[in-house]
Amino acid sequence: MSKLEFAVFGAGRIGSIHAGNIARRDDARLKYVVDVTASAASALAAKYGATVCDTTGALADKSIGAVLIASSTDTHADLCVAAAKAGKAIFCEKPIDLSLDRVDATLAAVRAAGVPMLVGFNRRFDPNFASLRARMAAGDIGTTEQVIITSRDPGLPPISYLKVSGGQFRDMTIHDFDMARWLLGEEPATLYATASCLVDPAVAAAGDVDSCMVVMRTASGKLCHINNSRRATYGYDQRIEVHGSVGRLLAANVTATTVELANAASVSADKPLHFFLERYAEAYVRELDAFVKAVADKKPMPVGPEDGRRALVLAEAALASLKSGRAEKVSA
Amino acid sequence: MSKLEFAVFGAGRIGSIHAGNIARRDDARLKYVVDVTASAASALAAKYGATVCDTTGALADKSIGAVLIASSTDTHADLCVAAAKAGKAIFCEKPIDLSLDRVDATLAAVRAAGVPMLVGFNRRFDPNFASLRARMAAGDIGTTEQVIITSRDPGLPPISYLKVSGGQFRDMTIHDFDMARWLLGEEPATLYATASCLVDPAVAAAGDVDSCMVVMRTASGKLCHINNSRRATYGYDQRIEVHGSVGRLLAANVTATTVELANAASVSADKPLHFFLERYAEAYVRELDAFVKAVADKKPMPVGPEDGRRALVLAEAALASLKSGRAEKVSA
Amino acid sequence: MSKLEFAVFGAGRIGSIHAGNIARRDDARLKYVVDVTASAASALAAKYGATVCDTTGALADKSIGAVLIASSTDTHADLCVAAAKAGKAIFCEKPIDLSLDRVDATLAAVRAAGVPMLVGFNRRFDPNFASLRARMAAGDIGTTEQVIITSRDPGLPPISYLKVSGGQFRDMTIHDFDMARWLLGEEPATLYATASCLVDPAVAAAGDVDSCMVVMRTASGKLCHINNSRRATYGYDQRIEVHGSVGRLLAANVTATTVELANAASVSADKPLHFFLERYAEAYVRELDAFVKAVADKKPMPVGPEDGRRALVLAEAALASLKSGRAEKVSA
Amino acid sequence: MSKLEFAVFGAGRIGSIHAGNIARRDDARLKYVVDVTASAASALAAKYGATVCDTTGALADKSIGAVLIASSTDTHADLCVAAAKAGKAIFCEKPIDLSLDRVDATLAAVRAAGVPMLVGFNRRFDPNFASLRARMAAGDIGTTEQVIITSRDPGLPPISYLKVSGGQFRDMTIHDFDMARWLLGEEPATLYATASCLVDPAVAAAGDVDSCMVVMRTASGKLCHINNSRRATYGYDQRIEVHGSVGRLLAANVTATTVELANAASVSADKPLHFFLERYAEAYVRELDAFVKAVADKKPMPVGPEDGRRALVLAEAALASLKSGRAEKVSA
Repeated sequence: MSKLEFAVFGAGRIGSIHAGNIARRDDARLKYVVDVTASAASALAAKYGATVCDTTGALADKSIGAVLIASSTDTHADLCVAAAKAGKAIFCEKPIDLSLDRVDATLAAVRAAGVPMLVGFNRRFDPNFASLRARMAAGDIGTTEQVIITSRDPGLPPISYLKVSGGQFRDMTIHDFDMARWLLGEEPATLYATASCLVDPAVAAAGDVDSCMVVMRTASGKLCHINNSRRATYGYDQRIEVHGSVGRLLAANVTATTVELANAASVSADKPLHFFLERYAEAYVRELDAFVKAVADKKPMPVGPEDGRRALVLAEAALASLKSGRAEKVSA
Repeated sequence: MSKLEFAVFGAGRIGSIHAGNIARRDDARLKYVVDVTASAASALAAKYGATVCDTTGALADKSIGAVLIASSTDTHADLCVAAAKAGKAIFCEKPIDLSLDRVDATLAAVRAAGVPMLVGFNRRFDPNFASLRARMAAGDIGTTEQVIITSRDPGLPPISYLKVSGGQFRDMTIHDFDMARWLLGEEPATLYATASCLVDPAVAAAGDVDSCMVVMRTASGKLCHINNSRRATYGYDQRIEVHGSVGRLLAANVTATTVELANAASVSADKPLHFFLERYAEAYVRELDAFVKAVADKKPMPVGPEDGRRALVLAEAALASLKSGRAEKVSA
Repeated sequence: MSKLEFAVFGAGRIGSIHAGNIARRDDARLKYVVDVTASAASALAAKYGATVCDTTGALADKSIGAVLIASSTDTHADLCVAAAKAGKAIFCEKPIDLSLDRVDATLAAVRAAGVPMLVGFNRRFDPNFASLRARMAAGDIGTTEQVIITSRDPGLPPISYLKVSGGQFRDMTIHDFDMARWLLGEEPATLYATASCLVDPAVAAAGDVDSCMVVMRTASGKLCHINNSRRATYGYDQRIEVHGSVGRLLAANVTATTVELANAASVSADKPLHFFLERYAEAYVRELDAFVKAVADKKPMPVGPEDGRRALVLAEAALASLKSGRAEKVSA
Repeated sequence: MSKLEFAVFGAGRIGSIHAGNIARRDDARLKYVVDVTASAASALAAKYGATVCDTTGALADKSIGAVLIASSTDTHADLCVAAAKAGKAIFCEKPIDLSLDRVDATLAAVRAAGVPMLVGFNRRFDPNFASLRARMAAGDIGTTEQVIITSRDPGLPPISYLKVSGGQFRDMTIHDFDMARWLLGEEPATLYATASCLVDPAVAAAGDVDSCMVVMRTASGKLCHINNSRRATYGYDQRIEVHGSVGRLLAANVTATTVELANAASVSADKPLHFFLERYAEAYVRELDAFVKAVADKKPMPVGPEDGRRALVLAEAALASLKSGRAEKVSA
């Protein structure tokens, strides 16, 4: 079997997950790890028998078929453009960039090069959400009418991270915007957002919010609600509910075990899995699988660059709505 | 034991429930039933050993301590005013009126008469929601941050009813507006609403909507979402979720039994109780109990006339938002 | 409407429930309360507008159509015989007697008198168990193969009560034996029982056990398991599970509310309803309803005297098995 | 890192799972695959880069540190003895043998050789059951009083398999006997078993049963119930419930997703995972992990040969009870 050879950019938390998933595949090989922090690159490369490399070297190697971009957000666009020019298939973590102009330029470069590109909206590959959507497609609930997305992180990231994150809408809600588009099956036409700083005043001091609610409406009248918080003391709260003309589908949280304790106080069960590494472990495996197979079969990517762009457009509309106090029209 | 004697106005579905609940109490007596439809009044009076009467006669009877107003919405305000002038304690089904001006006039008359008045927001007395709120008050989730209210009817009422209902916000969402205020513990300062007609085009033809989403924000930044639909094929969907600084409380739907079937198709459980008569049967009992006890003990009503007014103010804001496309400031 | 007039024997906990349920019916009337403790009889009679009476007087009153026997177990048989001779319909709390001989004599007298008799196996009227069985009858799980009954009390009754109770099998398991027969649809042919004293050594000192397990087998090979304990710190644990050729039905515990709390510790829900007064409140209402209707319609009782006898036969077999260490044949 | 080199005996369903799990470890290597069917051995060896070998060759290779025995049951004992003499660490699928005498002889050989041996009771490594037991050990429910084990296969295996399986107790219930011992923390002293042939008369014709119930009692009075069926149309039903002095722990079934559908028929969720390959996939990974680590650290095996023997002793007692109709004393 010929193996798809990968260069992974970024040896942090997400890069490490992807590197491990690449290494466990029979049809792929982790060849290079690239990271500005040499020690991180070395450690990750050593773990999976890969080689430390720099960007130029990795992209110049003809044997490299695919790049996986999991470096810091501000490097994504340049790496995508360079990889596109080098003719590599691109797996890029979200977001492509925090600036819509740079995203547009990146997409143009990718299109010009004709290389396949997947944007890392991992939740589409979560077995629960994927099953929910497959059942929508199978007609289980008839015509989609309302989508309700609950997405709450277990706790606040460092304020230093928030400062470069692009803010809650572009960093956190962007995943939910992608889920909304995917489930509505139609582009949101208007979007209203409101938000607060309830978790920590330091978030407000950093110019960000930590609690928000969004409502969107499509041209045909489908409605969608998203609620986010940067703090859910009980773990990572990731639920979706879709109401249709003949029923409702929901995907509940996932727990580590099915153990339940009944005692004089209550009947208690496990909390949801703590955070994305646990909850979406299987989603990352399936996401990579979809990427590798699409490259091998020369099929369209299940989440393409335009999906990355559209989610950012919604985040921008949310920011505009937050300022204007009105529902914003979502631009095309 | 001295019994509180009641005149019930309106012998329809809700009036009959209240009449039965009055009749089953040791400390109350159903004396009169008043209804424009003589046969309905007779049937209900006969069922519980009461007498058919007209408004004037019922209010003139000194032995009548309380009126229960469950007649058509357009009669509520006049009956409240007349009952207030006659010095009766008032239990008035929601809404007091569809016009805020008439509500204000009614409240003024009630205040002037100094009679106690309960507005029939029955959901506050649902054992599940009451327990949820008691646990909030007990500090189970710390400071309230977000409230999410799901409220979906099993099916569309007759279009003829919709035409006199005041529209989805004033007829249906008004219950959720009351729940929102009750759970937020703070008045909403801004409100955004959007809506669609997805269930039946006849609803749009009647000038109404059947599917809506609302987002509210209080001055301190608490957020609240409501979603409504006039159709939930699986029954009456009535759920509440409150997120606080140290936890989340939710009240799920109620089912007739705990029976579960596992077979080759799935593991299936009961649908939610079908509609308000089933789901809120116990709430109606407890609501009446609270009213009778507040009258007996000369204590404040748990849901007063101002609560009735405030919920209508939110419904008006929702209508305004629907037209303006922006978040409306909620007037005091 | 002609009303069925009742004399209630026994003004204790169970007698009071039935008295209240009688009083709340339109088609029944609580006329007499009989109890050896005069104050208890007076209090209960006063509560529902009834009269205190003695046994002879109550049975001599021609207007009395039915007796409800909820006095101490050792009085049941004599009262049944006297009521039968007086031609009254009989509602007798379980057990008819602790001695099979006396039960046989009682049944003979009832048969001779030709009066209808219901034995108070209230669980058959629990909405959950009744629904489970109706769905078995409707074919939801095909042919019944195995029945598993979990029945655990929240806490130990007074040792003084245990001493006159007849022991765990005749006092507690007897309900489960009735459920087993009702669900198996076939008489158990063999029965094995084992038991321990795990809750309190005082139970052993009183010659009883507090924890037991039973396995029964019918002639056609259906299997049934019962587990009992006198202590379940989380409340009254009452569950049933039936496995059939094409599926499984189970009835889970019932809770006061559907409220769930998620916090840093766990996701916790209500404990089961505490004990039989709460869990079976509705069952008592439905049981009385079935009795009154069967009397009015001259239809067979849903739980007859032979059911009372057969459950005791199983309890006797359990006692024998406990001694012999082997599966006992169940006598006819 | 030095790697533990494995020879896997048996290239069937279970052998393949273990082979894959060995291959995925950094600290182990699959060197040889041995199977009487050459094509099966070749295919499995090729999949993971191993070599086909015969028993003699594999055991003679000094580099082989461990054998994994997943061949047909009748070969287990001889392979264990041979492996023990060759000084290999032994991972042996259950049962060691169907004959207690051969088991004893095997254990003697293993003891004499002083090699470590794990018997494949995979359920101890299921995350749900392991968590349940860890919480028992942590005191969550106080003193253990009753254990209830539900273990039901989705469907009947081929009759040809049943004929060599040793019968339901030795083939299927043996897993539950191990769970019972593990959870009771004490050896069962008496055991009663009853059984039927309800699924298919061909099972009876083969001299076996397909539906059984067992009750065991320990010397201190702890009670345990097991129910088994060879058919559960809704999937693999694997649940455990433990009652203690201050609470109850239960481990429910595991599902593929948390998706729930509400429609006009019911509210339905996923069936349990279909069979052991799905349900216990993670258990097999953890079981191998425990084996490899115990070998590396020269620590006692978490499930030793004596555990394999004791479970068989209980199966023998069940067979004896089935014949005698009485509770059998369990021999030491």
